[in-house]
Amino acid sequence: MDRSSLDTANCSVGRTLDAIGDRWTLLVLREAFYGVRRFEQMQRNLGIARNILAARLQKLVENGILERRRYQERPERFEYRLTRKGLDLYPPLVTLMQWGDAYMADEAGPPVTLVHKTCGHDADPGLTCAHCGDALDAREVRVEAGPGLRRTA
Amino acid sequence: MDRSSLDTANCSVGRTLDAIGDRWTLLVLREAFYGVRRFEQMQRNLGIARNILAARLQKLVENGILERRRYQERPERFEYRLTRKGLDLYPPLVTLMQWGDAYMADEAGPPVTLVHKTCGHDADPGLTCAHCGDALDAREVRVEAGPGLRRTA
Repeated sequence: MDRSSLDTANCSVGRTLDAIGDRWTLLVLREAFYGVRRFEQMQRNLGIARNILAARLQKLVENGILERRRYQERPERFEYRLTRKGLDLYPPLVTLMQWGDAYMADEAGPPVTLVHKTCGHDADPGLTCAHCGDALDAREVRVEAGPGLRRTA
Repeated sequence: MDRSSLDTANCSVGRTLDAIGDRWTLLVLREAFYGVRRFEQMQRNLGIARNILAARLQKLVENGILERRRYQERPERFEYRLTRKGLDLYPPLVTLMQWGDAYMADEAGPPVTLVHKTCGHDADPGLTCAHCGDALDAREVRVEAGPGLRRTA
């Protein structure tokens, strides 16, 4: 595919980054995947200003990535839980972590490891081809026009 | 693992985001994965201010993610190519794209599809467990302390 004629206005990377592509939002999502649901604990863990955290949470709720649920009535208190749409952000978060494990970890090694509950072993998640099951490398994948492709004039 | 005692100062997600976690940097990487190597074409494709693009490229080179190579002598001209470290950012980029395909695409469908050159079929990349080969879902993975874990006081 000739990149020069590709209109990226509807690019799925760009649209995803509009929703979650800033550092704080991605760190809020990291906390959510660690099971942190409450404003106070997120705020403490991240050392983030309260107004910034509130704005990021609100945007994640508006985008259907987190759900705001009341867990206490008097006084009213809310927690934030990943929706299905939010849980589906696990692959980008995990692969960002893995890259950091490979290239940015301390000499001691990665701070956490991931265990696949189903089989009980180190998950070491990798990208594989849905058809043949082989591990995928950037150089083995070709981009082709999809149904929603727009071309520049 | 008890999240409340986890010091995330050396978290691999956080460190990765320090290197690439802003919208423009991730879009520059998208262009690089599309095979775009030259400043002028990146600038045109992204509609980004020249000084911002220059700063992002410089940081990516400093972090060893892109390599700056001279391809012409008089006048001197340079191009930017992904290093191995850069190519290893393919999984996060692809999975961000897939999430966008699933949740943000136009009604017509995703703008591009990925073909696995080796097997010739739609790659539809997914995360699998390195041990058992099964597809991984966020809920099937448990976080455990790794060798580099730091605990808060």
